[in-house]
Amino acid sequence: MPKLINGPERVVEQELEGLALAYPDLVKQISGHAIARSHPKPAGKVGICIGHGAGHEPSMCGFVGPGLLDADVMGEIFACATGAQILEGIGAADRGAGVVLLISNHEGDVLNGKMATKMARLRGLNVRPVVLYDDTSTAPKGSEPERRGIAGLVFQVKVGGAAAEAGWPLDEVVRVIEKSRDWTRSLAVAVAPGTHPLTGRPMFELPPGQMSVGMGVHGERGVYQGPLLSADETMDRVAGAILADLPFAAGDEVVAFLNGSGATSLLELHLLFRRLAHTLRDRGIRLHRAVIGEYITSQETAGFSLSLCKVDEELKALWDAPANGPYFKIAGSASNA
Amino acid sequence: MPKLINGPERVVEQELEGLALAYPDLVKQISGHAIARSHPKPAGKVGICIGHGAGHEPSMCGFVGPGLLDADVMGEIFACATGAQILEGIGAADRGAGVVLLISNHEGDVLNGKMATKMARLRGLNVRPVVLYDDTSTAPKGSEPERRGIAGLVFQVKVGGAAAEAGWPLDEVVRVIEKSRDWTRSLAVAVAPGTHPLTGRPMFELPPGQMSVGMGVHGERGVYQGPLLSADETMDRVAGAILADLPFAAGDEVVAFLNGSGATSLLELHLLFRRLAHTLRDRGIRLHRAVIGEYITSQETAGFSLSLCKVDEELKALWDAPANGPYFKIAGSASNA
Repeated sequence: MPKLINGPERVVEQELEGLALAYPDLVKQISGHAIARSHPKPAGKVGICIGHGAGHEPSMCGFVGPGLLDADVMGEIFACATGAQILEGIGAADRGAGVVLLISNHEGDVLNGKMATKMARLRGLNVRPVVLYDDTSTAPKGSEPERRGIAGLVFQVKVGGAAAEAGWPLDEVVRVIEKSRDWTRSLAVAVAPGTHPLTGRPMFELPPGQMSVGMGVHGERGVYQGPLLSADETMDRVAGAILADLPFAAGDEVVAFLNGSGATSLLELHLLFRRLAHTLRDRGIRLHRAVIGEYITSQETAGFSLSLCKVDEELKALWDAPANGPYFKIAGSASNA
Repeated sequence: MPKLINGPERVVEQELEGLALAYPDLVKQISGHAIARSHPKPAGKVGICIGHGAGHEPSMCGFVGPGLLDADVMGEIFACATGAQILEGIGAADRGAGVVLLISNHEGDVLNGKMATKMARLRGLNVRPVVLYDDTSTAPKGSEPERRGIAGLVFQVKVGGAAAEAGWPLDEVVRVIEKSRDWTRSLAVAVAPGTHPLTGRPMFELPPGQMSVGMGVHGERGVYQGPLLSADETMDRVAGAILADLPFAAGDEVVAFLNGSGATSLLELHLLFRRLAHTLRDRGIRLHRAVIGEYITSQETAGFSLSLCKVDEELKALWDAPANGPYFKIAGSASNA
């Protein structure tokens, strides 16, 4: 798949410049690789920041704004930002009440996040790194902290962002982020690989006509690998694995997040969601809210991930609080009627 | 590209069921092919309705909600809803103050829209069909009403929806819809074809590595057809053609809408937007707002369209009014700070 870029140099800088030019009321570019809110809250708000690799847009640059992230730092394509780059984001997010540094559990993200934390602390900043993990296919139940971070971390961005926006202190913001992480489970399905924007090569191997449910990081076969299944059959395997892992039980309430990987259409996601909704209903699990769309992509990869987050009254209120990033908006409930 | 569906039967019915199950606070399925707002406004509001073909999601089912459409009727994949189906949407949108039926200028949409209008009038409903056209590549300047409707009709959904939500009478809602149509120009770029979800075949022909800017409906070469250009070169051709057509001039203000066709990543769209923003600045044209993302797609087609709408104080206020569809949200300006 050919890509509309301007050569391999300065792709991320140019992209963030474009983003900031599009939404100047929401975000500003504070350095080549970092963006922050255009209108930071007054001193006293806990800051929320993340550093990661580019190529998964709108993640995370599109989630900077009121009720979400204060700053986002993107590295190169599929390579995490450096510790020094992330430090800039922490500095921008700092309003004197401490900063939560979200870290998706991947080797590069953890390494650079720890480096940034160390440097920030040397400068006297109060930084709390929180490692996020949700991919049930990458480590067995009981070893949750070894699992990879995938799309489920959107829950922690939303919940932590809402708590910080509401003026909660650092310990409390960290507490609800960790709670929503511990109550989140995700699983990803791949149907066809996307293309690396710079090399022009497929991002992973998958024989045509085959699909993979829960492909592990080391090539494990996961929940299913074989010929393409129907939407209903696919969702049954995905939801079955996720629901069994927490486990989610009758009477639980959940927020469901169906994330498109890039080339899978909303038409397909809606068919998949329909089956999920039926399954939740049949199991007595109440759907509090749903969010469907391309939030954490891998170029034009075909596939999706499902994330379920168990919610109580506290998490429901935080999820429903208004949020206004360029690509993640929750309207106040008053706007629905 | 394999598709996650449940066979060729009832695809659209199942998809709309999934949509309504995901966002019950916003939309409800009123028949197999039609959805409407879950919480219609009290009597006295002008209704806004549209009928069209499926396969372009989130268009238009994702744009039903406060400040947007009251009802949407989808036909089969890439085939417009029938007059009888659209009539159901008109009925659902009717709150006793008249209904605007938006019609994208394609043969099937116009035919079925006219049929629905005739049937609705026989039932005593006050329906005003408005045909929308914006694609500069499909007919020369001076013959605007012969042009096709493409992504620019999102402006009319937003502007008309805001006027109706604010309680404007039918004549005034039609007036601002027609004004924004007459002030909108669009041009589309294709990089690689998507796949028809039912036949599994490419949706159009384009040699690998080639791109088309403004491919006409009858195979015209348009503005450019040849090897893939850089993001900057591509945008220069697209913006150049659009700006010359209205023409847009120094001192004008615009809302810019960069629509992804399906497989083109936000990373690429941000690079394209960056160049557009530079061009507008250099020409003395003020960017009032931007919206970037996949709004009117064609499955996993790679490419994009740019739409520019000239705005005055009236259109700016209507654009900025809050809107809350499942896939089109404008936060009130108070939420940005």
